[in-house]
Amino acid sequence: MRYSFDELVAFSTQLFRAAGISGEHALVTARRLAEADLRGRAGHGLIRVAPYLRRIRAGGINARATPRIRRQSPTSAQVDGDNGLGQVVMTMAAELAITKAAGTGVAIVGTVNSNHAGAAGLYTEMAAEAGLVGLYLAVASANGMPPFGGTDPVLGPNPLSIAVPAAPGRPFLLDIATTAASHGAIKVARQRGEPLPVGWVADREGRPITDPDRADEGFLLPIGGHKGSGLTIAIGLLAGVLNGAAFGAGVVDHRLDDVTPTNTGQVFIAVRADVFRPSEPVPGDVTRHLDELRRAGGDTLRLPGDEAARLRAENTEKGVPVAADVISALNAEAARSGISDRLR
Amino acid sequence: MRYSFDELVAFSTQLFRAAGISGEHALVTARRLAEADLRGRAGHGLIRVAPYLRRIRAGGINARATPRIRRQSPTSAQVDGDNGLGQVVMTMAAELAITKAAGTGVAIVGTVNSNHAGAAGLYTEMAAEAGLVGLYLAVASANGMPPFGGTDPVLGPNPLSIAVPAAPGRPFLLDIATTAASHGAIKVARQRGEPLPVGWVADREGRPITDPDRADEGFLLPIGGHKGSGLTIAIGLLAGVLNGAAFGAGVVDHRLDDVTPTNTGQVFIAVRADVFRPSEPVPGDVTRHLDELRRAGGDTLRLPGDEAARLRAENTEKGVPVAADVISALNAEAARSGISDRLR
Repeated sequence: MRYSFDELVAFSTQLFRAAGISGEHALVTARRLAEADLRGRAGHGLIRVAPYLRRIRAGGINARATPRIRRQSPTSAQVDGDNGLGQVVMTMAAELAITKAAGTGVAIVGTVNSNHAGAAGLYTEMAAEAGLVGLYLAVASANGMPPFGGTDPVLGPNPLSIAVPAAPGRPFLLDIATTAASHGAIKVARQRGEPLPVGWVADREGRPITDPDRADEGFLLPIGGHKGSGLTIAIGLLAGVLNGAAFGAGVVDHRLDDVTPTNTGQVFIAVRADVFRPSEPVPGDVTRHLDELRRAGGDTLRLPGDEAARLRAENTEKGVPVAADVISALNAEAARSGISDRLR
Repeated sequence: MRYSFDELVAFSTQLFRAAGISGEHALVTARRLAEADLRGRAGHGLIRVAPYLRRIRAGGINARATPRIRRQSPTSAQVDGDNGLGQVVMTMAAELAITKAAGTGVAIVGTVNSNHAGAAGLYTEMAAEAGLVGLYLAVASANGMPPFGGTDPVLGPNPLSIAVPAAPGRPFLLDIATTAASHGAIKVARQRGEPLPVGWVADREGRPITDPDRADEGFLLPIGGHKGSGLTIAIGLLAGVLNGAAFGAGVVDHRLDDVTPTNTGQVFIAVRADVFRPSEPVPGDVTRHLDELRRAGGDTLRLPGDEAARLRAENTEKGVPVAADVISALNAEAARSGISDRLR
């Protein structure tokens, strides 16, 4: 079923408000989640509302959080999330970095005591829409990958997003994790009964696991072996350790533990696109180069951001598709909170 | 054979001077190349002296270059390399970024009209030694990889390096390319007569090429499929297009063309390690986390930077190993330039 973006945001906002979240924070979180669905990133969309509400009720997320700037300079800041919803904390951090960089050319903002913030590309897209490059790094909210050559899964699929302004509404937008497959992709394969490609999951002896029902017995594998493993660690050091946030064995699995604060750390760097040369040619040159790559690639090529932009346009017109079980979960939460509205 | 670091630098400096390079630029270039050998990165070491000299003589590199700052702010700069040696241009850019970031917290410096600058990790290591995080991105000096899903090899193995200060002399130091294998790794497999692992090289139909003698018929493959491909493009946009430097079809293959200026672009971001919280705990916390990963990994684990640090210490004590054919090439260059010294 498809729903209007505004209806999904309004409904989800109600649910968060009913759980004690302030109106402003409820709206920001609902928007970020619905924006993920709008772009076809359902894994970071409204499917997260129920687990977030569960964590809020259990006390693992601070419903009354007041994220604040703990330390700042004209080019930098750290936002202490006060264990509030990650979308609220990261939206504040990204906006702060974008505002600072618009003035100084480049800025870096980190977060501490934050939480899972959903689709990384939403934050870098904010930068691209303002004419800036956005770079987002975060410590994933669950581990599952050993450092390359090891067997203890103390690393996670840390996300990395880079957006570069191009044509309006069509930025270059890379949004990846450093593992070959996400937990979500494995779940999809399991639902479809399809074998996992070699390179996604391995057992303790490094042998491939291709049976999706046995995926939990193994580890996620990094892209490019030691390269992806090293990149994951680099992201963890920058987003986690520099901020004094969790990394490695200290990461709390937010899927299994609803109570312990995750102390999630994120980093956002914004750079004005005209930092090296006048702004006039830059977005046009980016578009020209991307078009060149599209021609070089032929029909099978999809550049980072193309599919999200296409789906955003299509779903804005036709409505945002949301899976029936997600709608059921949202309606169940409404019933639980004494809200009479239902998504139909 | 092993040689003293200082002897290698002095000898190579003489060769560059004989080719018309100023004393200072010759020394910087010779140092960067010998530092790569010192750390076991022979592919970016003195093996490059002869090809660089060939390009200088052919006019493809400007022997009389005066790299200068074209545009700058307290947090940013662009260095116009004047088509000089890449090591000279990037050393200037990295030092500038480090100096600026030491004052402002974060800084970004780009290059245009630069050239191949050798081992990426040398520049980020400079930042780590000064107590800063270093991030280096560059457009590779030769293409060989199509965008994922395409067949026209308009992308290259763009390098990415991230260094984070930890214990003195033992930074975390990631230095990777976005392809599964480098041209150098394929060359080594060919010399040893070993088959190429699946995932390194593929033909136009996407079928793996495992015969190292047939590698040139195929393409380099990105790490993680569309992920590595997207990362390569992101690096190219930031290091190339933002700077107004070459990217995509405009990249000149410096192995095949000694005459055309490459207009290489690089980007260096430096961030003070205490940008988010007081400096005292940060490098110690980084070291503690890396030690935790080393324990989690067991004997087979090597973290990024560990091997380079080990080799640097070993080769400083025992001398720097340089292959006999590289020494022969250096001696031949000396003979050609009427220099009476020889490496023995």
